[in-house]
Amino acid sequence: MATNIPGYTYGTAAVGKSPVSLDDFAKLKQASLFGDDDVRYLKMSHDILKDQVEQILDVWYGFVGSTPFLLHYFTNASDGQPNMDYLGGVRKRFGQWILDTANAEYNQDWLNYQHEIGLRHHTTKKNTTDNVKAVPIIHVHYIFALLIPITTTLRPFLEKGGHSRDDVDRMQDAWRKSVLMQVILWSQPYIKQGEF
Amino acid sequence: MATNIPGYTYGTAAVGKSPVSLDDFAKLKQASLFGDDDVRYLKMSHDILKDQVEQILDVWYGFVGSTPFLLHYFTNASDGQPNMDYLGGVRKRFGQWILDTANAEYNQDWLNYQHEIGLRHHTTKKNTTDNVKAVPIIHVHYIFALLIPITTTLRPFLEKGGHSRDDVDRMQDAWRKSVLMQVILWSQPYIKQGEF
Ligand code: HEM
Ligand code: HEM
Repeated sequence: MATNIPGYTYGTAAVGKSPVSLDDFAKLKQASLFGDDDVRYLKMSHDILKDQVEQILDVWYGFVGSTPFLLHYFTNASDGQPNMDYLGGVRKRFGQWILDTANAEYNQDWLNYQHEIGLRHHTTKKNTTDNVKAVPIIHVHYIFALLIPITTTLRPFLEKGGHSRDDVDRMQDAWRKSVLMQVILWSQPYIKQGEF
Repeated sequence: MATNIPGYTYGTAAVGKSPVSLDDFAKLKQASLFGDDDVRYLKMSHDILKDQVEQILDVWYGFVGSTPFLLHYFTNASDGQPNMDYLGGVRKRFGQWILDTANAEYNQDWLNYQHEIGLRHHTTKKNTTDNVKAVPIIHVHYIFALLIPITTTLRPFLEKGGHSRDDVDRMQDAWRKSVLMQVILWSQPYIKQGEF
């Protein structure tokens, strides 16, 4: 995952170990009906999505940007104005995340980076990567809610690959499962001790 | 929602007020792209599902029953054995929940009962409704994960109504959104103060 994206630390020593073990994650996959087929369909989506990343980000940023109570989380704590540097910095890592999700290599490095992404939405690490002074936390209920716009608006991009409706359904299902498992992992810092 | 189901207290004075307001919920709907069309498709699903509730429960209970780390939450704290009275008691309320979800009347009573269901999965109230001595809490990551088996295994039942593939897709999408919003509301007791 070597890239030149500022703050993207996947697979590096800067990322701590996930409190969720690979064994725990295997059970999470089982409970989410996530299997080898899903990995295959995610990888199929990779080839379709890799040249459409900027257009996908335009749609997602358009949604967040036009929804004031979501844009709020990208605003300065001081003056309540959207922080353009912050929006731009996160956007690059978000683009890489699309490729990582579609790449579907669910190993220890991946698990550790999920923990890192959770911390970056939570007060623990929010704002530190981009060195901004924005609002201190993203409320977790919206993180789960965004599963829907993200996996819904992805569909027209998946359809551009010219695959059958069945294959597009399966790619979208695999995305739904993967993003759900990820936001579950991201929620860990928000959950009371022993209740995750 | 008057029924004779033991422990089903929807709309009664036994249910406390949700800490989530109807205004908060309106924003949650917006973030989840949940709209009037979804209400319409949920109600369409009601007519299809109402005579299939027991068969749906057979599938869901089959999944939980055959997955030891899930069945665990229905076991006695003392001897680790599945508690059949508990499984049977919850099953009746679960059946009613299918109808309530498809009924899609998202008002203050509904919101309050979502809070109650959350408390019943959490230590706060788990086991009290059925007066059992089972394990004390359902870990929240599995509650979110079960969104997938529940909305996936529902599909063949939705298909029984003889509607077009497009309509079945939309009913299933509406179910995905509704169940997601519900589990988000249920997670509230698990989240650290101020972070929900
Ligand atoms: C399914 C839901 C979501 C997904 C898939 C998602 C994805 C991501 C990704 C991939 C990153 C960059 C991670 C990195 O640093 O490598 C990120 C960061 C961020 N996201 Fe999200 N996100 C979600 C929900 C939300 C919500 C609801 C908000 C609120 C508007 C939000 C706001 C942010 C912000 C402000 C950052 C920068 C955090 C920081 O490092 O300071 N995200 N998100
Ligand atoms: C999408 C996920 C889930 C849904 C839709 C769901 C649905 C329900 C419903 C409708 C009830 C009855 C509420 C009432 O009392 O009126 C219930 C209770 C219960 N559920 Fe879940 N559930 C989910 C996740 C889980 C998980 C992961 C487990 C673990 C195996 C679980 C185990 C239980 C137990 C043990 C009860 C009884 C709690 C008590 O009152 O003591 N549920 N669930």
